[in-house]
Amino acid sequence: MTPGPVRDRRSTGWLKRLAAAYAAELVEPGMVVGLGSGSTAELVIRELAARVRAGMALTGVPTSRRSERLARRLGISLLAPEQAPAIDLAIDGADEVERETLNLLKGRGGALVREKLVASLARRLVIVVDVSKLVDRLGERMPVPVEVVPFAWTGPARELERLGGRPVLRVAAPGRPYRTDNGNLILDVDFGPLDQPEALAREIKLITGVVDHGLFLGLTDTVIVGEPAGVRVLRREQPSPPA
Amino acid sequence: MTPGPVRDRRSTGWLKRLAAAYAAELVEPGMVVGLGSGSTAELVIRELAARVRAGMALTGVPTSRRSERLARRLGISLLAPEQAPAIDLAIDGADEVERETLNLLKGRGGALVREKLVASLARRLVIVVDVSKLVDRLGERMPVPVEVVPFAWTGPARELERLGGRPVLRVAAPGRPYRTDNGNLILDVDFGPLDQPEALAREIKLITGVVDHGLFLGLTDTVIVGEPAGVRVLRREQPSPPA
Repeated sequence: MTPGPVRDRRSTGWLKRLAAAYAAELVEPGMVVGLGSGSTAELVIRELAARVRAGMALTGVPTSRRSERLARRLGISLLAPEQAPAIDLAIDGADEVERETLNLLKGRGGALVREKLVASLARRLVIVVDVSKLVDRLGERMPVPVEVVPFAWTGPARELERLGGRPVLRVAAPGRPYRTDNGNLILDVDFGPLDQPEALAREIKLITGVVDHGLFLGLTDTVIVGEPAGVRVLRREQPSPPA
Repeated sequence: MTPGPVRDRRSTGWLKRLAAAYAAELVEPGMVVGLGSGSTAELVIRELAARVRAGMALTGVPTSRRSERLARRLGISLLAPEQAPAIDLAIDGADEVERETLNLLKGRGGALVREKLVASLARRLVIVVDVSKLVDRLGERMPVPVEVVPFAWTGPARELERLGGRPVLRVAAPGRPYRTDNGNLILDVDFGPLDQPEALAREIKLITGVVDHGLFLGLTDTVIVGEPAGVRVLRREQPSPPA
């Protein structure tokens, strides 16, 4: 039997576990490690906890209350990022990974601001996904999450429409807006597949009331992809040295 | 006796009151009015409340919890900005007003994000100051307040240093950081007098973790200045029509 296209969340669980175990192997004793949020990042936290139980010293910097609770329960020492002298490595999941650039779309889990802060502070960002998350262009399958302050949120929503998007307020339950760990709202903004993500990312961030968005551009060093045939490692091409 | 330079907060009270009364006269019956924050904006709220008591219908959109409480206590009907169909006019104070451009530096009171949202949504922004707030270049007398999310705030602080600023975390009391109405922190960043405020404003807003900053550029229509000789009205020059 040959594996068909992998789309179903249940069927990709073992691919994610494979990739998560590989990512955890990148962590060396004594490192300060950014702990991502979401189902794949939680698999990484479990792998790291197993290494801690086996005697490895490491410190985690969690990117959400949920990851913090999980890591603490599993016995990983934790620091807030403003207390960490440096973050050696951050490991996180992603909702979309653009094959050519390793640019990311993140935020379906709602922790995008903290994830982006930890990713920006880390010396290296490693992303763990199953093969279903690879896309040719960001925005192919999901809208761009944009975190906005609750006060006057309709203002930024109108600006996002002016940029060509269709913003929808994320809800936790009918009539109850979803709140991020920072107490803000999320607008899920459908722009379709993105031709110029860099320009769009700047325009979105410059809107008054926008805290940040789910486009993570130029931050990723390594993507670990769980595929039916095993683990594939994608690295961002370094600029060529002068000839 | 001729009046000397006006610097002392106590001695400028009557200049502010003069300007506040003048600003309140700009409000017409039925308008939705953005209510600023800070001592001068509170004088405007008091003037507006007097007009409401005299029978004028108007609706206020407050920019801080403090202004909200004051306006409610004085009997002004209030709306949250996301409920207001449109804001006809916003009236606010400022910490510095650049003479030539009417660009502003705001945020000493800590309400800069809400103030900027209401200013951006309003059809017209009217600023009320005493003459001591006029400067040749923004940044002459005070640092630029930058609102940042508390999580990993040392990251944005480092980026602000890279832009040439000297960030200081604002405190409410020794050892206790000041919190905005949005639950965020304020970094007061000394850049000295600003040569290129537009470029700096963009760079600051693009930093991950920055919510917004106290530079209000291109937003002001009218500045009402209380001077010893009376009230002076400054209007932004409209672009000349083609010859």
